[in-house]
Amino acid sequence: MGSRTCLTFLTDFGLEDGFVAACHGVAAGIAPGVRIIDITHLVPPGDVRRGAAVLAQTVPAMPPAVHVAVVDPGVGSARRAIAVEAGPAILVGPDNGLLSWAITALGGADMVVALTNSALWRRPVSPTFHGRDIFMPVAAHLAADTALAEVGTQIGGDDLVWLAPPTNRVQGKEAEGEVLSVDRFGNVQLSIPCGTMTQLGIGFGSVLTIRCNRRELTAPYAETFGSAAPGELIAFADSAGQVSLAVSRGSAAETLSLPPGARVRIAASAPA
Amino acid sequence: MGSRTCLTFLTDFGLEDGFVAACHGVAAGIAPGVRIIDITHLVPPGDVRRGAAVLAQTVPAMPPAVHVAVVDPGVGSARRAIAVEAGPAILVGPDNGLLSWAITALGGADMVVALTNSALWRRPVSPTFHGRDIFMPVAAHLAADTALAEVGTQIGGDDLVWLAPPTNRVQGKEAEGEVLSVDRFGNVQLSIPCGTMTQLGIGFGSVLTIRCNRRELTAPYAETFGSAAPGELIAFADSAGQVSLAVSRGSAAETLSLPPGARVRIAASAPA
Amino acid sequence: MGSRTCLTFLTDFGLEDGFVAACHGVAAGIAPGVRIIDITHLVPPGDVRRGAAVLAQTVPAMPPAVHVAVVDPGVGSARRAIAVEAGPAILVGPDNGLLSWAITALGGADMVVALTNSALWRRPVSPTFHGRDIFMPVAAHLAADTALAEVGTQIGGDDLVWLAPPTNRVQGKEAEGEVLSVDRFGNVQLSIPCGTMTQLGIGFGSVLTIRCNRRELTAPYAETFGSAAPGELIAFADSAGQVSLAVSRGSAAETLSLPPGARVRIAASAPA
Repeated sequence: MGSRTCLTFLTDFGLEDGFVAACHGVAAGIAPGVRIIDITHLVPPGDVRRGAAVLAQTVPAMPPAVHVAVVDPGVGSARRAIAVEAGPAILVGPDNGLLSWAITALGGADMVVALTNSALWRRPVSPTFHGRDIFMPVAAHLAADTALAEVGTQIGGDDLVWLAPPTNRVQGKEAEGEVLSVDRFGNVQLSIPCGTMTQLGIGFGSVLTIRCNRRELTAPYAETFGSAAPGELIAFADSAGQVSLAVSRGSAAETLSLPPGARVRIAASAPA
Repeated sequence: MGSRTCLTFLTDFGLEDGFVAACHGVAAGIAPGVRIIDITHLVPPGDVRRGAAVLAQTVPAMPPAVHVAVVDPGVGSARRAIAVEAGPAILVGPDNGLLSWAITALGGADMVVALTNSALWRRPVSPTFHGRDIFMPVAAHLAADTALAEVGTQIGGDDLVWLAPPTNRVQGKEAEGEVLSVDRFGNVQLSIPCGTMTQLGIGFGSVLTIRCNRRELTAPYAETFGSAAPGELIAFADSAGQVSLAVSRGSAAETLSLPPGARVRIAASAPA
Repeated sequence: MGSRTCLTFLTDFGLEDGFVAACHGVAAGIAPGVRIIDITHLVPPGDVRRGAAVLAQTVPAMPPAVHVAVVDPGVGSARRAIAVEAGPAILVGPDNGLLSWAITALGGADMVVALTNSALWRRPVSPTFHGRDIFMPVAAHLAADTALAEVGTQIGGDDLVWLAPPTNRVQGKEAEGEVLSVDRFGNVQLSIPCGTMTQLGIGFGSVLTIRCNRRELTAPYAETFGSAAPGELIAFADSAGQVSLAVSRGSAAETLSLPPGARVRIAASAPA
């Protein structure tokens, strides 16, 4: 067992079938001592951007690990299967952009390998279930004692499919972003890093003007939503270092009708 | 690794984001050998009473463990973070009552500590994600080799926030309780322990009069619902030692319109 | 710890309560080193056929393991509790047919034991929660060091309750089956093994006539759906070796109105 004895797993397989378990079983057969942490299996089917966002925000909390991610609408087509060393981690998945934001979050790609060593795969390979038959067995070998160079052919990092990053720009004194995700509490995460607020000279305690859906709203920029009055809209620095919108004891996503992708602009309110 | 090599985890984080996994990752980094058992992460957002009920009913089946529970609408406010030794277990979570029924189920608090030793926390601490940055790292240290006294300042058990227990009283020959929870099968668990039935002289095989929602129903008090006719209403002693109502091959919760909190009264039927 | 250090778990318990976790806790107390892989806990309540299908399709990917399955509408009635050795695995569950298709998938029953050795059970046994009190403790003992013969009384394999297999027959040049399951992607799995297609002389690249719901449809029989145009209906060999129907980037189950159990007939299209 190498230094990466932890394996994480993110897919759009859902929890109603045995797909996730089959992958766990394959990994346990190859690397009996490996710990498997399920990130989520409820990525909306085929939603590569959502999978990429959840993966990128979760990997920083992980110990050195092999991260397997499979949101793969192109399974069985010509898209490549890859393994990418990035900082203390190796990411394994389809070369469709799913891994790209996590690679950035981990400090960039140090080495990229196309998975071509079929001796490590499960046989026969189902053309529709590379998670079980290619990605997971290769990842389990990597978590055990196989070197990255042995799983296939090294390729250039510039060659990878890369997802366009979500909107994040500053225009004058205004930050513009989009809704990155909505969590179970209805909190709306924006693609505006807290650092952008600092850059604009906006600190906690400021009052913000938020423009979205042709509406203009006012909200405090707070360190937490714990002290907000029920029903109050606030902006806060979330646990991934992004600006998020919340309605205390309510759902900001519903109140503001903000689905993923919707544009939002934020500036300090002009003094009255 | 100490004698508690098992860590359980209950939250309202849901399964669609990476929040639960981030906490697993933090624990695995601190205590690589610890087993983590997820109790549930589908507590309705902010529903402290529901979280308390599920926790209290599940901990008795666990080996000696550190139980981490996070249903924490007051995260970032002044509520304390605590660790409580109770029998063979340590419970870790916010001091908002979430742990209180489990403490009782485990025999009462032997030692209570406010989590003030920030050297054990993950840095930086997000004001909105104490699960990842405070509760889980402290719990993982406790599951490894850290003594309870080292995680903070000892406080009095009488000081803890305590949830009011659900209604459970006897009036004459009638037991009164409320709906504690509804499970996936539509079975309605009441806050009436089976012991109360014994106390009232009601044994299996008796016929009950059940009053709820201004209706009066008749049902047998049975040891199990296996022998009931499809559609038949029965009362039985459930796996947590509480009186539950079931409709064979149907949903008692739907048939009787009984949500959590609804009042129910039970007595032996008068002989005809 | 014996050679089966892996334990899998499939139920209809759902994920909102602590039922699954209680079973994990009981297993961890008896066999601290055992790895538990959850297959699914979202089998529709009481749907023994669905549970049997998921179990049978998942066990082939598992290392030598003890498989615990509990979809048990007859809990508390006279149905037996059994453990069945089949190939490298032992299956544990109620004798209601739930295990039967998995036994076949594993090569047939080598030894069958009725669980009568109550010394291995958790005490007291809840009449409504044999998963926690009988099936899981017995399985954990089997995963640790207990021999199969010690968990109860050996019985004949012919004696087991067996589920009628799903329709799968050939009439002339036509294969007839039924919908076995619908996955999260809306893919419709039929009870027609790919081998039946080979037997009918139908290879990948053929065009099929599919009859269901009084409609007649045409679809290619492809090795994968990766190359299909969005909205196109195709038949493919799925990851379990069955013929499945998919609509590229859509849901075949919705497009064709095909729920589990619906009849489907497939033949090669006559050349135009």
